[in-house]
Amino acid sequence: MSTYIFGHSNPDSDSIVGAISLSYLKNQLGEDCIPTRQGKISAETEFILNKFDGVEPELKTSYAGESVYLVDFSDYGQAPEDIKEATILGIVDHHKLGDITTSTPLECWIRPIGCSNTVIYEMYKSFNVEIPKNIAGMMMCAILSDTVIFKSPTCTKVDTKAVKELAKIAGVEDYKALGMEMFLVKSAVDGATARDLNTRDYKAFEMNGVKVGVNQLEVVDLSVFDDKKDMIFEDMAKMKEEEGLHTMLVLLTDIMKEGSQLLCISDDVSKVENAFNCKLEDNQVWLDGVLSRKKQVIPFLQPQF
Amino acid sequence: MSTYIFGHSNPDSDSIVGAISLSYLKNQLGEDCIPTRQGKISAETEFILNKFDGVEPELKTSYAGESVYLVDFSDYGQAPEDIKEATILGIVDHHKLGDITTSTPLECWIRPIGCSNTVIYEMYKSFNVEIPKNIAGMMMCAILSDTVIFKSPTCTKVDTKAVKELAKIAGVEDYKALGMEMFLVKSAVDGATARDLNTRDYKAFEMNGVKVGVNQLEVVDLSVFDDKKDMIFEDMAKMKEEEGLHTMLVLLTDIMKEGSQLLCISDDVSKVENAFNCKLEDNQVWLDGVLSRKKQVIPFLQPQF
Repeated sequence: MSTYIFGHSNPDSDSIVGAISLSYLKNQLGEDCIPTRQGKISAETEFILNKFDGVEPELKTSYAGESVYLVDFSDYGQAPEDIKEATILGIVDHHKLGDITTSTPLECWIRPIGCSNTVIYEMYKSFNVEIPKNIAGMMMCAILSDTVIFKSPTCTKVDTKAVKELAKIAGVEDYKALGMEMFLVKSAVDGATARDLNTRDYKAFEMNGVKVGVNQLEVVDLSVFDDKKDMIFEDMAKMKEEEGLHTMLVLLTDIMKEGSQLLCISDDVSKVENAFNCKLEDNQVWLDGVLSRKKQVIPFLQPQF
Repeated sequence: MSTYIFGHSNPDSDSIVGAISLSYLKNQLGEDCIPTRQGKISAETEFILNKFDGVEPELKTSYAGESVYLVDFSDYGQAPEDIKEATILGIVDHHKLGDITTSTPLECWIRPIGCSNTVIYEMYKSFNVEIPKNIAGMMMCAILSDTVIFKSPTCTKVDTKAVKELAKIAGVEDYKALGMEMFLVKSAVDGATARDLNTRDYKAFEMNGVKVGVNQLEVVDLSVFDDKKDMIFEDMAKMKEEEGLHTMLVLLTDIMKEGSQLLCISDDVSKVENAFNCKLEDNQVWLDGVLSRKKQVIPFLQPQF
């Protein structure tokens, strides 16, 4: 029986590429693994798969009775609904430790670094398995995406070193240029509905009994949102209602100016203002230097609840 | 500020030695770590420390405001009471994933193998740090203890290989003889009160809302309990009352005969009988081949609740 490997719901490039790269490694080690995904692929991920001849993992949302490895998450909020009926053989991640528990011993490779694919890169080295050229290219892109081409405060030396070594294997000379090309694809908002935008990198967090939703859109130039903000706000209010959120936030992150415009619809804006020591105007504020939801947003919000 | 490294409450040899061996590794890597312990040291651990010039870690039960690494556990039930006020930098373990969560990214080295010190041995290799002779000896003993000198079903090839390599570093020729000597120390029950015995390797488990306590005593010859069973049963009933347990179990494990005499005081013995497909007589039963609480007891009990 095969084992399935997949990333979190609403998958980003790290989740999709991580499923592919970890499956290949596990298969080389004699396990029989199949990469899957919990949701649809983003334009950025599609760009990566096309660039490096990657095969889109199969969509699979139910895992009762199956054995699985999880990539890039460790909480039930981002897992398939029937995950408690699956056997979790292992977790590869780079986030805080979530609420998933298991009933049998497992394998966890979790590191406080910039990207799950960097952890997987370390696993390849640890097991002395050669990384195929196309998988190296995809892993490199996943790391460039998660670390915002090394600009994110989550980026560590381990990540930059991994990118440089993976670029060599992939035969990519100018990985920064490729990273920019990728972020231009990610920046495309034309034709997207407000809901498309608001769920593109949406995550919900439990904070002391209330639910806080945080979406992030990383672009090369914030002006692409100039004529979209009204419809984004309108849809944020709808999402807040539908999902029963206390607060719905959208981070419009400008990776060139290195900061984020924070949009906020909340039952109590003072919590958000206190978290970031700022004053909202028209439900928004510029947070200079803020690039990472994980490191610069969530840890400041959590204590307010 | 120093970081503290400690194992679970009611520490076994793996917890104490793991705190020592992981602290040394982290210090070599430039962190400032101090091994501590949550409770008193067993006769077996004392034997190991004496044998290899080990220093008993300092007793420390409160960690609010501190940074910590956890060894050999990942659940709140075995953690200090104020663990939620500490920053958990990492977890090294070989059990199922427990209910501990963190608010910041961390480092987890968790493997489905026989002993946390085997995981730490792999960490030394991964960071290319030389293991001092005395620490190698202690790590070897911790692995021999957790794997019942390789007899436990939890023992893997990784564990046996680690013991062989650690024995070389420690200059121990006959590690199996040393293991037997250690288990003879562990077998000593003379002078121990019933409560000493019942808490020697006691762990409490939450099973669907009820609490199940399981203690394990590993000995070289079961006959040492012949004149102790009455007082053990009497005290089990007391512990069940005091701790609000649904079921209190004691495994008297004979490492030579390779099985366990199960003693049981329960609100519903049928759950225990169904778990092990057996019939209790005088509140006890011989479970042939059962050496591991983690692998051969808990996974069969859990589904009954």
